[in-house]
Amino acid sequence: MRVGVLGTGGVGQTLAGKIASLGHEVMMGTRDTKAALARNEAGYGAMVLADWLAENPEVKLGPFADSAAHGEIVVNATAGAASLAALELAGAENLEGKILIDVSNPLDFSQGFPPSLFVSNTDSLGEQIQRAFPGAKVVKTLNTMNMELMVYPTSLAGGDHHVFVSGNDAGAKAEVTRILKEWFGWREVIDLGDITSSRGAEMSVPLWLRLVGSLGTFMINFKIVR
Amino acid sequence: MRVGVLGTGGVGQTLAGKIASLGHEVMMGTRDTKAALARNEAGYGAMVLADWLAENPEVKLGPFADSAAHGEIVVNATAGAASLAALELAGAENLEGKILIDVSNPLDFSQGFPPSLFVSNTDSLGEQIQRAFPGAKVVKTLNTMNMELMVYPTSLAGGDHHVFVSGNDAGAKAEVTRILKEWFGWREVIDLGDITSSRGAEMSVPLWLRLVGSLGTFMINFKIVR
Repeated sequence: MRVGVLGTGGVGQTLAGKIASLGHEVMMGTRDTKAALARNEAGYGAMVLADWLAENPEVKLGPFADSAAHGEIVVNATAGAASLAALELAGAENLEGKILIDVSNPLDFSQGFPPSLFVSNTDSLGEQIQRAFPGAKVVKTLNTMNMELMVYPTSLAGGDHHVFVSGNDAGAKAEVTRILKEWFGWREVIDLGDITSSRGAEMSVPLWLRLVGSLGTFMINFKIVR
Repeated sequence: MRVGVLGTGGVGQTLAGKIASLGHEVMMGTRDTKAALARNEAGYGAMVLADWLAENPEVKLGPFADSAAHGEIVVNATAGAASLAALELAGAENLEGKILIDVSNPLDFSQGFPPSLFVSNTDSLGEQIQRAFPGAKVVKTLNTMNMELMVYPTSLAGGDHHVFVSGNDAGAKAEVTRILKEWFGWREVIDLGDITSSRGAEMSVPLWLRLVGSLGTFMINFKIVR
């Protein structure tokens, strides 16, 4: 499958690398490819992009619009605060009718750590994205855990924990559920409901952040016991 | 131990009944005892109060202030929207120096179901209560699950799931942790941090509500896998 992964940070690298390793054709998207390749610093959990691409030569890099046009499925792995602008550059026409997997979180670091959320409670970033791109089938998922666990869930407790999906299109959620299980190895995917249930998934992040601080590890996840 | 349980709804009844069954002297607190006893309707998960008291004769009923004065430990089991007013009636002098176990959630039902939160993200009800009653040692706990599970955690998966505590006073959190384990049977209590970590615990409730809707049962809880 052709997959566009918007974002070249740690989450984008992790997702693009894993998906490409399965034999899919991945193009990462960024705002300015020349500037991205010239950067010699990397954010949290990321490698310097040029070094990462050298180690992952099967992954292509292009502007957001080319990445989105390339993908039969598009993944939003940009920072939450930049997601709507990145998707504007990706272009509604390149997202039309496609599944848009949104893994971003609306983190607001303006008051330091732990971050608050710049949208929450009566709205969510998942909903904002769906409203801005009504032709895309937005599925919110994978935003409730560390990037390593997103694609290697079995590295923790044999995968005995959960990932959620939220979205308005049942077929899109079924396809994303299949991808989560078959590509990444998730054992159980819980459907939270329509895209408004992104609120719940995004609002769980502050608890996750406190747990990370309290337990001293990013390698944690929620299991819904019932 | 003498325990004051503020609130006579389902949560108050569940906590008061369980604590009294262990031999502790419990006084429930309400705004107007005569009106409360005259009520012949009951809220979610509750019995008509007069009937419940007839079945639990060891539990006393009094005004909020008497209940708080009675308790060596006080439990806030009122509805979140009424908690600050109830605690005002309980009286700062009756809470001074005491552990105040806060199990409430800032639920806002004004837009229907599922509710949103009337405070969240950069503040929490736990913090509001601690600020309003600086002499009390507020410990936020038990707000992340159904009332039955609060006091009967082993009724789900043998208790293999988690409860959190948030608060500024380490000694108070240690005592509440002891109570959760020895009185109710919790196997593991996770300390999230100071009272600002109430934000995380309270903001997880929207996810819990979606899970309840999606899974069709209230008998669920979070396990933090690590």
